[in-house]
Parts: sequence; structure tokens; C-alpha cells
Amino acid sequence: MYRAPVDEITHTLMHVAGLKSAIGDGRFPDLGEDLVDAILAEAGKFAGDEIAPLNAIGDKNGAKLADGAVTTPPGWKELYRRWIDGGWNGLTGPEAFGGQGLPMLMSVAAVEMWNSAAFAFALGPLLTMGAIEAIDKHATDELKAKYLEKLVTGEWMGTMNLTEPQAGSDLNALKARAERAGDGSYRIFGQKIYITYGEHDFTDNIVHLVLARLPDAPAGTRGISLFLVPKFLVGDDGELGARNDAFCSGLEHKLGIHGSPTCTMIFGDGKFGDEPGAIGWLIGEENRGLACMFTMMNNARLHVGIQGVSIAEAAYQKALAYANERTQGRAPGFKGDGMSPIIGHPDVRRMLLTMKSLTQGSRAICYTCAQALDMAHVTEGDKSRKWMERASLITPIAKAFSTDAGVDVASLGVQVHGGMGFIEETGAAQLLRDARIAPIYEGTNGIQAIDLVMRKLPLSDGATVCALIADYQADADAVRASNSPELAGVADRLDRAIDDLRTATSFMLDAVRSGRQGEALAGATPYLRLFGLTASGALLARGAMAGMGEDGGEGRAALIRFAAANLLPETAGLSSTVTAGAESLEAAAAALT
Amino acid sequence: MYRAPVDEITHTLMHVAGLKSAIGDGRFPDLGEDLVDAILAEAGKFAGDEIAPLNAIGDKNGAKLADGAVTTPPGWKELYRRWIDGGWNGLTGPEAFGGQGLPMLMSVAAVEMWNSAAFAFALGPLLTMGAIEAIDKHATDELKAKYLEKLVTGEWMGTMNLTEPQAGSDLNALKARAERAGDGSYRIFGQKIYITYGEHDFTDNIVHLVLARLPDAPAGTRGISLFLVPKFLVGDDGELGARNDAFCSGLEHKLGIHGSPTCTMIFGDGKFGDEPGAIGWLIGEENRGLACMFTMMNNARLHVGIQGVSIAEAAYQKALAYANERTQGRAPGFKGDGMSPIIGHPDVRRMLLTMKSLTQGSRAICYTCAQALDMAHVTEGDKSRKWMERASLITPIAKAFSTDAGVDVASLGVQVHGGMGFIEETGAAQLLRDARIAPIYEGTNGIQAIDLVMRKLPLSDGATVCALIADYQADADAVRASNSPELAGVADRLDRAIDDLRTATSFMLDAVRSGRQGEALAGATPYLRLFGLTASGALLARGAMAGMGEDGGEGRAALIRFAAANLLPETAGLSSTVTAGAESLEAAAAALT
Repeated sequence: MYRAPVDEITHTLMHVAGLKSAIGDGRFPDLGEDLVDAILAEAGKFAGDEIAPLNAIGDKNGAKLADGAVTTPPGWKELYRRWIDGGWNGLTGPEAFGGQGLPMLMSVAAVEMWNSAAFAFALGPLLTMGAIEAIDKHATDELKAKYLEKLVTGEWMGTMNLTEPQAGSDLNALKARAERAGDGSYRIFGQKIYITYGEHDFTDNIVHLVLARLPDAPAGTRGISLFLVPKFLVGDDGELGARNDAFCSGLEHKLGIHGSPTCTMIFGDGKFGDEPGAIGWLIGEENRGLACMFTMMNNARLHVGIQGVSIAEAAYQKALAYANERTQGRAPGFKGDGMSPIIGHPDVRRMLLTMKSLTQGSRAICYTCAQALDMAHVTEGDKSRKWMERASLITPIAKAFSTDAGVDVASLGVQVHGGMGFIEETGAAQLLRDARIAPIYEGTNGIQAIDLVMRKLPLSDGATVCALIADYQADADAVRASNSPELAGVADRLDRAIDDLRTATSFMLDAVRSGRQGEALAGATPYLRLFGLTASGALLARGAMAGMGEDGGEGRAALIRFAAANLLPETAGLSSTVTAGAESLEAAAAALT
Repeated sequence: MYRAPVDEITHTLMHVAGLKSAIGDGRFPDLGEDLVDAILAEAGKFAGDEIAPLNAIGDKNGAKLADGAVTTPPGWKELYRRWIDGGWNGLTGPEAFGGQGLPMLMSVAAVEMWNSAAFAFALGPLLTMGAIEAIDKHATDELKAKYLEKLVTGEWMGTMNLTEPQAGSDLNALKARAERAGDGSYRIFGQKIYITYGEHDFTDNIVHLVLARLPDAPAGTRGISLFLVPKFLVGDDGELGARNDAFCSGLEHKLGIHGSPTCTMIFGDGKFGDEPGAIGWLIGEENRGLACMFTMMNNARLHVGIQGVSIAEAAYQKALAYANERTQGRAPGFKGDGMSPIIGHPDVRRMLLTMKSLTQGSRAICYTCAQALDMAHVTEGDKSRKWMERASLITPIAKAFSTDAGVDVASLGVQVHGGMGFIEETGAAQLLRDARIAPIYEGTNGIQAIDLVMRKLPLSDGATVCALIADYQADADAVRASNSPELAGVADRLDRAIDDLRTATSFMLDAVRSGRQGEALAGATPYLRLFGLTASGALLARGAMAGMGEDGGEGRAALIRFAAANLLPETAGLSSTVTAGAESLEAAAAALT
């Protein structure tokens, strides 16, 4: 059973993602180290004691649809009640509406723990978090007054309605339509698919955010508007009124996250109300809906990256426990009687160390992304802009590298269990099934790689990416300067990885600047992986340097030494693929038969 | 829906795995090129038309146990009947017992197609094939006379009973026991787990091969004997008699291959018969059961490698079809109206080309393993010994590299489908779930890597591995000598990969010879991957060289060019991990918390 790794999370927050110095610098006046510790300890306790025991039940029973109503797995509704009663939903919500307004760094740490405990359960509140953010930043005061407080407490939940059958990665093709009702409200019509927690029994009301086109809207993504469409209309007194014309017509039968209802939503077909049309209210300006969505999407992408970390951590813990317990064969050097625990076998140890390196590396990447968001918030002017650009740059890496790591680590977790890994009751297979969604949703990892190369590398004409790489170089330099025998060989390997990243980055920047779009797109995915691996190495080293001699210090040093010698060597090949792989890819249409 | 890639399979058999020249040299007097074509065309037709339509049904319904009887999915029993009526079960069976005695090369080609069509269905006959082989090579004439013909026709099926809860990778811990009955027969007692097709409704009788210990047997694997234990006893007239004391007490609830019943088998607890004890007959000599099992296990491992190829091919076909059909966005250079098929997007193309490279590369590795087995069979003396050693060397690579490829390709297949990939109805997710067993069973891939390094590299004091690498070098040299513009850059990349393989091989041989077992074991898995990648590249090049100017020639050349520039660069990092990664791995126990 999952236990929150509170010490490692705290160490990463404080020493890798700079929370300790930010607190020391007075960046977060309401947050002291004691409070950080207290919140993380409580969040971890809730995750391990309350959420984790209901994970397998959710997978086995799934969410069920009957007569338009969705029943969540046994015990989940009550769990959600305990969750909001504990105040967890409002952790990062705006203080003006009852939230605690904690920094994103605290959010990612808590979100990690909840998703490790039960991904399919924790996913719902993530959507609500996104809805809160979009409403808080872009909606009218009237809408805020009516909806925000209840979303922040968790009394109501929120959803995001983007995808349609013909419009997935490409929202240009979006067809849902909106009509002005003349009274300031709108009527929404259309079908949306893959709507997470589009319908459920956790809360009395559900606040849908829906992308749709007005009749006179320009074609493409510049003609999309964002609407708030509640399941039940809300009176001026805040009381629930009539059912709105929106309902769930089907649930998907999915590979994983069975407890999370993935809904097909029908808006405005006349099932409810006097005449067809779901009543909605505009968020932001007409035709500017995508911009509103994007503010929110960056955080959502970071949170999905965190889900990758979460699954990886859960898979690592499960595999580690099994490898310590299961005996088979005699490992080299084993002195006991009979068979040795399989953790003693070098190949099993390689799997576990790879799992831990990827878990901790992607955690560090995600947390430094949260750090950049927080710093952008608490600084001003050019400083703030630079931090925001850094967050924008790291976001696609955090999303894609971490979710790929989630799948890889979960798959290694199955392998460590041998035959038991393939048996559902073990739980290792569930983690792999659950993990597999994260590289797909919230922008596929291919889309993330394109975003990284085409939109993020060119930020400030390349200065943003150069500054980040320079920070990684500083980590490598610090290792070298330390002359620490525990980190023997690490500085050399980091230098080489950073050189590979620099070479590939120059190539990519040049390709983008000179309009060689095909080359940039062809190498985007290996480039993102190269970036993620190098960042992992630098950040693992940063964490090890900060914790020398302390509890866990020896383990952190050993982990980066392992990763440097065993995982970082991949960067040379990736760099070569980025810089020399495009031509053969472009020429290979004949092979695709 | 899967269609057998008969042309590509034939090309690989003939030109990569040497079947054309073997036939030309008169190695297989009963087999002409026309017959090869006819058999492959018919097998492909059966796979596509008869087996494939029942694959999803098998996954959805699964095998079910009630009152000790297993019901296979709807339509599967009838499919099995058509399968044996078509004579497919006896393809490689001994001619003396009604089989066609075809070379292993024909077997792997057919097995590939059947497993692509429905892995969980085709798995059953693979077990029968193994049982036939063990009985044919090691049993008495009396047992052969009684059992072989019906196993060869498929009227009965066979099983392999090795694993027990405490004895998986380590058969030393095996506890099932056998007692001499005094009449030449034995009584078997014990529990076996993970028994594939241990019970089902395909056939009237099931022939279990069971590993157990005699009371006076030495400890460890030298005290294990192999027994034939039929579900129903067989009279001298060949008629079925009393039910034997062996039954299925449970089915596993698995991640994939739902149609294949994975049974817990109970032998000798008194459920059937007058007194407890399942009646069995010795195969081979007492205490030499593991040796009997191993003759068979090599072929079984190759066949599991083929299953990796099968899943990869099925996943590639499905993803390719989707990528040609689904439109989204506008790919660079797309000239049509509206959205372009996603196959035009460079990142999607990278996924598909990676999938195809891994599929075709692992197919070529498996087929060359079959070639070595066949050549060992049709040659004599030193030549035969060399071919057999080559087969032994390639077997763990064929098993592990191909099954890893199966998982990776199936996972990429899910990704190409985007959100649809996570929905079970699409079928891409089933392939991933099914694929995941292959790296685990028949010796985990970690065990294969250890086998490769500790037992196979030292064959003929390293001469076996050096000869194989020299063959790959000859492929690279041929590409260079051809000066073919279609293969620009390929020779250089192959040279580098082969150099990396040589470096790592020397290191490993030295580690094994000088007793640095820890280092050899630590690097075994990356070494196996390095070997597989390099072999893939050389064999893809061999296939491309042979088919220049012919149908499909352009595509084969384009594929190796892609693989050389985009996949082979990984070898440098792998070689470095093998030669420099062990120390940090051994020292990293402190990190495993």
C-alpha cells in the first residue's frame, strides 16, 4: 500500500525547487517551513490512510451509467466528502473565495500524493482546479460570486469540455455552437467526448466549461468562445434551480482509470428544459475562449506531468516491497540460507534504480516548473516575465517526460513482479493501465514536443532556454567543485549530457529560425527526451549536493551516480538523432506500407 | 483487421534467413519455393479470415471456470476444430506420427501469423508443440505410440507444468513430488501455477507434462524428473478411460490474453480416482527432467520471441490504418483541403517508422534463429555444432529483444491512436495488454540476458559470438561496397553499432572469464538490447540489399536508412552503460529505500 514519501518530497521542494530560499527571502509571507511540513504530513496521511485503500476498488468496479446518472465506485462518494471536509480542495484556490492561496509548489506536492494513492479519484479535483482558475482569471464578478466559492470548497465540481469526435489535437475543427439569447446568456448545442467527470454523484451540481462557436465567429481557433454551463441552474440566492439541457449520454470503456467517468456530453438537444439549448454564460470575451483555456491548460499540463510522477512513485514502492520480500535464486554475495530476496539480483536492482531515477528526476522537473510559476507570481517586471517564460519552457517537458516515465516505470514495476505482475490482484498492472492515459490527454506528448520546439525554444530569442541550460551547468560545476568521492564520475557525465543538449538546442533553434520546420518537427520527440534526461540528471545532482551528510544523503548520491553512468549515456544518441535523423524520416514514406 | 504480411515474411525468410539458398542447396528436399509460397499464403489466409475475427471476442469474454471445467470464449472451440481440420497443428510435427516435418523457418512464419491474429488463441498450440517435441525426443516408444499422433493432429493438446508458487525463475525450489508405483508408473502430487491451457474445452484429453521430485532425488535442479500425466487415462486401444487425479482449481484474472486459460493445477489430492495420486509416466531418465525440459524450452523461447513480433506487426498495421484515415491539423507540405491525415505529421511518422523498424528487425532476428536451428538439423559434425551454438546464442536475444519490442510497439500503437487508443473498443489497448506477458513468461527477459552473457557468450570460448558479429559486419561491408545512394549513411552507422557491440562483447567475455560475475550480471540487460539493436540494423540492411529494385525494395531501403539514423545511435550509450555502469549499480543499495 502506498505511503507518501514526505521526506523526499520535502527535500525536493526545499532544495531542488528552491522553496527553502524563497521562504527565507520572504517570498511567501504566510508560509513558514513548519507550515510546509505540517501540510505535507497531513496531506500524505490523508493520501495513504484514506485514498489509497479505495484505489483497487475503483479499478475493479469502475464508474457506471444508468438513466443518465453516473454512480462512482463503492466508497468514493464518501471519500470525496471526507476530502472536501478536510479542506483539501481549496489548497490553492483564491483566498477571496475561501481558498488557502498556497503556492503552486505546495499544490504539486499534494497533487502528487493524491494521484499516487488513487489516480482515477484525484483526477476529478484537478479538473475542478482548472475550472476555478479559468473562472477566477476571466469570468465576470457576477459569475465569480455565484460559482467560485462552491467550487473552491468542493461542494460543486468543474469540468473541461474541449474535445469533439473530429476535433482532438486540432481545435480548429471544433463544431459545438453557441447562440446569443439576448439577455446576456447564451444557448449551447453540440456533442463533447472524453469529458472527465462530466457526470457523477460526488456533488449536487457540476460546472461545465464548454468551448463553442458563435454564429458570426471567424473560422479556426480565433472563433472559439468559452462558456460556463452548470448542470443545474443557480438562482441569485445560490440555490439550485432547473436542470440545464446538458447530460451524459455514454461512458467510455477504458484501458485504465476505471473509477473516473469519461463521458460523452450532449448539450442542447432538448432533453431538459422548455426548448432545446443548454443555458450558458460567456467567460472572457467572445472568440477569445482558447486564450482563456490556455491560461489554465499550462497548469493542467504540469498537473498531468505530476500524475506521471505519482504513478511512477506508486509503482516503485510496490516493486521495491515485492523485491524485498520475494525470494528466488541466490544473488551474488548473498550469505544467508536458501534463496535470497530478488532485490539482491543485479538485474532486479537495475530495474529498481532505473525506476527510482526516473521517478525522482521527473518529480524534480515538475517541481522546478511549479517553482518558476510561483516565482513569476511573486516577482515583478522583467524578473516575473523571465520566470514565466521558464515555466512555459519547462511545462511541455514536465508533461511529456514525466508521463512517459510514468508508463516506463509502471511497466518495469510489472516486470519486477514477474508472473505476479500480470495478475490483476497484484495491482502492478493497474498502475500500468492507469499510467497509459497520461501521455495522451491534455495534449499528447507529441504535441508537447512540438510546443517545446516551435513555441518555447524561441522565447526571448533563445535566451530563456540558454539560461535554463546554464543553471543545469551550474549544478554540474558545483558537483565538480565539491570533489566529492560519493559523486565520482557524475560531473563528467553531466557535462557530456549538457553538451549534447546544447548541440541539439542550437540545431533546433537554427531550424526554427530559418524556417526548416520539417527538421524541427521531425526531431521534436527525441529532443524533448534529451532535455528531460539531462534535466533529471542535473536536478538529481542538485538534490544530492544539498543533502550531503543528512538523512537520505547517501541514497541520493548513490542514485545520481547510478543515473549518470547508466541512464545519461543515452543523451549522445538522442542528440545525434535530433541533428541527423530528419532527412531519412522525411524520405521514408515508401516504408510506411 | 489483421492481414498477414505474406510478402514481407517471405522476403525475410528467403533473403535474410537464407531459406532461398538453403532450398537451392538442396537442404530441404521436400520443400520448393512454390510450396513455401503456397503454405504461407494459406496460413496467412487462415490467420486473417478465420482467427483474427475472434480475437476481440476472446478478450472481452475470456475463459471461464465453473465446476472444474473451463469454457473458452464463444466461437473458439469451433475455430480450434477448423484449425486442426486444416492440418495446421502438425506443420512441424514428426512425420512418423503424421506431422509434416517442415523446417523451423516455416514454423516461425506460420506461428507469427497466428499469434498476430489472436495471441491468446495461438498460444495453446504452441504449448502442444513443445509437448510433442519433449515426448518425441525423450519418451519411450510406448508413450510415443500412445500420445504423439493425437497431439500432432491436435485431437489432444499438451501443457507444461513447471511453476509453483515458491519456484518461478528458480526451479531449485520445486516441491511437487512423484512416487514410484511399482508397475513402472508414478503417482504425482502437488500444485502448479500459471499453467497455460491447463484445462479447456478444445479437446477431449489434455496431456500434461509435469516436473516433480522423486523421494530419493538429490536436492536442487538435478533432482527433478519429467512426467507425462494425461487428464484422462488412455487404454492400449487408444480409447479414453478413467479421469486422472488432476484438475484445475482456479483461473488467473490477468492483464491480457484473457481468452487463454491460465490455470492453477492440483495433482493427486484425491478428487478423482480410488486413492490420491495422479498417474504419470516418466519422460527421459529419473532426475534428468530439466534437461528434457531445456531441449524444448529453447524452441519455446524462440516462439515467445515470435509472439513479440506478432503483436508488433498487429499493432503496426492497426496504427498505420488509423494514421492514414484520421485527419487532424495540417502537416507540413500538405496540399489538400481541410485537415490532413495524421500520417503526414513528422512525429506520427516517427512513431510508425519506429514501430515498423522494431517489428521487422525483431522478425529478422527470430527468423535467423530458426535458420540456425534448421541448419544444425540438416548439417553434420562441426558444422551442425556451430549452427546449434549460433541458435543457442541468438535464442535469448530473439526472446527478450522481440518481446520488449512487442510491448514498445504496442504502446506506440496506443499513442498513435490518441484518445481512441485508450478506449478498449479500438483494440490497440488489447494488444498492449496481451503483449505485456511475453517479456515475463518462458524465462523473464532478465533471465534471458543472464543466459546470454553467462552461458551463451562463452560458447566455443567466444568464437560463436565473434562469428555472428562478423556476419553482421559483412552486411555492413556489403552496404558500403554497394555505394547505393538509397542506403546513404547506413554503412557508417552500422559500423559504429557493430564497434559498440564488439567493445561491449569483449568487456563481457572478459568479465565472465575472469570471474567478475557482478559486472557481467549488472550489464546483461543493456548488453542484450545493444545486441538486438545492432542485429536488427544489420538484418534490415541485409533485407534491403537483397530486394533492391524489386517490389517493396524502396520501402526496405528507406526503413534501414531511418533506423540507422534514428534508432542505431542508441548503441553508443548502451555500450557505455555495459562497460561503465556496474560499479555504481553495485554501490547503490543505499538508494533503494
